[in-house]
Amino acid sequence: MLPTKGYAAQNATSPIAPFSFERREPGDHDVLLTISHCGVCHTDIHMSRDEWGGSLYPMVPGHEIIGTVQKVGSAVTKFAPGDRVGVGCIVDSCRSCSSCGEGLESYCESGCTWTYNSKTRDGSALNFGGYSNQIVVEERFVLKVSDKIDPAAAAPLLCAGITTWSPLRHWKVGPGHKVGIVGLGGLGHMGIKFAHSFGAHVVCFTTSAGKTEDAKRLGADEVILSTNPEEMAKATGTFDFILDTVSANHDLNAYLALLKRDGTMCLVGVPSEAAAVHAFSLVGGRKRLVGSLVGGLPETQEMLDYCAEHGIASDVEVIPISKINEAYERMLKSDVKYRFVIDMATL
Amino acid sequence: MLPTKGYAAQNATSPIAPFSFERREPGDHDVLLTISHCGVCHTDIHMSRDEWGGSLYPMVPGHEIIGTVQKVGSAVTKFAPGDRVGVGCIVDSCRSCSSCGEGLESYCESGCTWTYNSKTRDGSALNFGGYSNQIVVEERFVLKVSDKIDPAAAAPLLCAGITTWSPLRHWKVGPGHKVGIVGLGGLGHMGIKFAHSFGAHVVCFTTSAGKTEDAKRLGADEVILSTNPEEMAKATGTFDFILDTVSANHDLNAYLALLKRDGTMCLVGVPSEAAAVHAFSLVGGRKRLVGSLVGGLPETQEMLDYCAEHGIASDVEVIPISKINEAYERMLKSDVKYRFVIDMATL
Repeated sequence: MLPTKGYAAQNATSPIAPFSFERREPGDHDVLLTISHCGVCHTDIHMSRDEWGGSLYPMVPGHEIIGTVQKVGSAVTKFAPGDRVGVGCIVDSCRSCSSCGEGLESYCESGCTWTYNSKTRDGSALNFGGYSNQIVVEERFVLKVSDKIDPAAAAPLLCAGITTWSPLRHWKVGPGHKVGIVGLGGLGHMGIKFAHSFGAHVVCFTTSAGKTEDAKRLGADEVILSTNPEEMAKATGTFDFILDTVSANHDLNAYLALLKRDGTMCLVGVPSEAAAVHAFSLVGGRKRLVGSLVGGLPETQEMLDYCAEHGIASDVEVIPISKINEAYERMLKSDVKYRFVIDMATL
Repeated sequence: MLPTKGYAAQNATSPIAPFSFERREPGDHDVLLTISHCGVCHTDIHMSRDEWGGSLYPMVPGHEIIGTVQKVGSAVTKFAPGDRVGVGCIVDSCRSCSSCGEGLESYCESGCTWTYNSKTRDGSALNFGGYSNQIVVEERFVLKVSDKIDPAAAAPLLCAGITTWSPLRHWKVGPGHKVGIVGLGGLGHMGIKFAHSFGAHVVCFTTSAGKTEDAKRLGADEVILSTNPEEMAKATGTFDFILDTVSANHDLNAYLALLKRDGTMCLVGVPSEAAAVHAFSLVGGRKRLVGSLVGGLPETQEMLDYCAEHGIASDVEVIPISKINEAYERMLKSDVKYRFVIDMATL
């Protein structure tokens, strides 16, 4: 076993605090990596505070992991010590269902194994995430990360990046499309960058008038203040695609009204409460309300390679691990542009 | 003006009762038809009782109209006196938007003009529906109905038929698909017939165990009692497409759970209340909740021609117009197999 240092939540109300635990020794197919950076996702807050229910403690959060390969198992072919690599939300899956066969591991029919707040496939142990100095992950679930990308700015690509990339690609967003991105946070700012890069006309929906200039800097062609009924009304029936990244409870019908006939609104945020959806919002205009969950390993690699090639990464604020509880409080006030990333050398 | 006999609701609580009014004289592009049959749609109840709000009185309901051409305007080319024809839910639209251009008049961007409970395009008069002896409709909105189909059994095709045909065709339901039809009423029984005819494996969801044999007679391969949690649980993650025809309030998440990854659930019924949709129901499995509204004129003609060729029509109970209020009460108790059709000779 590998003695490992990290930070954990001990229960739903405890702060994130230092925690010592053990990782498994890398097996034949495993990669041991030294973590250099870990992004701080809103999911870390939901899960460490048991806001979605079923949280497993002690919990070492973190699923936007960048590191360097330290050691590989004898059967590992894709990685060698010294490689820059990433680990995202998923560290295992059944590998035999049709979703796994298509490289869509997040939709594994028997449920994928999450990087943290999840048990190992055999149920024998808890998985601990990236708020730690090292991690052992099977080769299939490790991603190559180009040295061209700053490692801190690369970390959020492993969750915020792929979560927005996957639906924009799946629904073929591109030139000629008017695309809305709802919410300008960790996910939203990546949604703007990707949709802009794909050639769409990008509209950012935000509740903060103060974010207008920044949204445009990130690639938005327009910004709509969603709290302004006149601005919203003017946009009725004009959107091909809307990516909704908001995880706070909000009215979906107001955005469905903005879609053209046959338009699609995709949810990637998961509010705690069910949304009230009027059948008329979908029936009139033959509209689609869809969801998307992270993304599979092959498309994550594709996204990382695209980012390296096109100079795309996240806008981040690097913090020491000691500031993690403060970071959570600031995230709840949307006081971050646009992702905290922990410098794991501070551990 | 043409003196016309019909039955109307005078307000939200009045019974449907005899009513005399005038139709316009047919213009150059118009067809005057003598109505032989009119189907009784659940929408007739919602609208005559103002259950969706905004009802316009006096209201002559009826949008499943079969009749014979009596007279045509000088510019009419597709129809001649004596032809068997139909009129459905739509009698006008802007004709210049992209939806009208694609023959999807029900999605007309400035709103299509409904057959009843709607004003004429210029706002000068109320449109009166099919519970009457004659109607004048512009050629574009009149459909040819083969003499091969019994006229009473053809009437519900104009609404219940096209409303289920359109989404099954749009979403390309066919061989190899497992398709659920929720609700076995006027719409549901047509959904079963069409999905079966398209080669899908059809599962009928019903709350009435007594409907099992009849659902199978109509073309269902299986019947699931939606009130039985075990039967529902067994079906989790197995459906490619679910057509939800129910207009009573019900839980959509229970059906979304039955879809495969990338599966689609389409609403064609419009419950009075918004449905509570959990984001997790869509996000896990990249699922789609969509809507569909009636259908356009070209696809309605295609559906009518298909029905004539394949011997498909509705299962109906023909009633005299004097029984219309009683029919409404029986419909509310689901006591009809599966559509009442008024024999307009009884007017």
